[in-house]
Amino acid sequence: MLHLKTASQKRWLTQVDANLEEVLIDHAHCERKAASTAMNLINAYTENRDLCHEMKRIVEEELEHFEMVLALLDQRGIVFRRLAVGPYGRRLNQLVRPSEPLRGIDRLLVASLIEARSCERFSLLADHIRDRDAELADFYESLFESEARHHSTYVRLAEHFAPRETVRERLDQLSASESEIIREGSSLVRMHS
Amino acid sequence: MLHLKTASQKRWLTQVDANLEEVLIDHAHCERKAASTAMNLINAYTENRDLCHEMKRIVEEELEHFEMVLALLDQRGIVFRRLAVGPYGRRLNQLVRPSEPLRGIDRLLVASLIEARSCERFSLLADHIRDRDAELADFYESLFESEARHHSTYVRLAEHFAPRETVRERLDQLSASESEIIREGSSLVRMHS
Repeated sequence: MLHLKTASQKRWLTQVDANLEEVLIDHAHCERKAASTAMNLINAYTENRDLCHEMKRIVEEELEHFEMVLALLDQRGIVFRRLAVGPYGRRLNQLVRPSEPLRGIDRLLVASLIEARSCERFSLLADHIRDRDAELADFYESLFESEARHHSTYVRLAEHFAPRETVRERLDQLSASESEIIREGSSLVRMHS
Repeated sequence: MLHLKTASQKRWLTQVDANLEEVLIDHAHCERKAASTAMNLINAYTENRDLCHEMKRIVEEELEHFEMVLALLDQRGIVFRRLAVGPYGRRLNQLVRPSEPLRGIDRLLVASLIEARSCERFSLLADHIRDRDAELADFYESLFESEARHHSTYVRLAEHFAPRETVRERLDQLSASESEIIREGSSLVRMHS
């Protein structure tokens, strides 16, 4: 359902254990960036009513999550701050083809894959910390559904730009690249490292 | 209260009468761009909690207004489309000084002045068309309050970046420039022409 080619490796959970604080801070930035991506899509495809309506909902939800994560950081006495940006988003965005309508398809599918990976990682994180930190596990479980829904919304919207079969083929290619980027990982401890 | 140096001239209402459809389409774009500006400010000043919280509210309100204007266009059989961009926003943004914290002050104050001018023009438009088109007049009156509130929010937030007196002096300068840009006008019929 999430169109991911590979599951995250244990390596990531080892990183999480070593620096949970930084993962939580990065998560706040992820929500902010997800809102920003949806806003950029409204600006780019402003005549597409269905897309704008769905993006409006995503902007609102992601900004709501942004504030929820900030509140969680406050509760835990973690100071929200800027972080060096990991390579995941940048490398995925480099795969976006420059000319329309290919660019539109790719922007939506890259967004769909980021949502899918977040979804997978929220679930992994929730299971991993359940015994030690039920509150945090509950928080991540509560976000799971919306990330999965956003994934589906982005894939569906890509079908405004090309036939379903073309979209599925491209999703297949981009998902293979996404798995490769995740497999390589990053020494910066992030939600998508 | 709106810190505008001059009222709009009758010239603008003549433009509105000549091409109301284009003004309404431009208004939808104004709401979208206002949401985008607030989102950009969240990204730029992400560690400023008060600013991010206020910008979140503004993003939500502006996107709501964007959809309200689109619905109004639909009701009137006006097709929403891209328009050539008038000089107003570009010229104001050219006044933003490049280095922080001056850049932050100016971005917020320019946003405050755009909201103030929108507010003034919504009120002018409502009064001008009341006899002919009460529905449209009511619509613009309903938006007046939020634009005025956004103006005040932006001015208040600028005081995170400098003392109140410094902010007021700069607002004074920028407002003088804004009035000059409005006085010159533009042959493109727009909400801020």
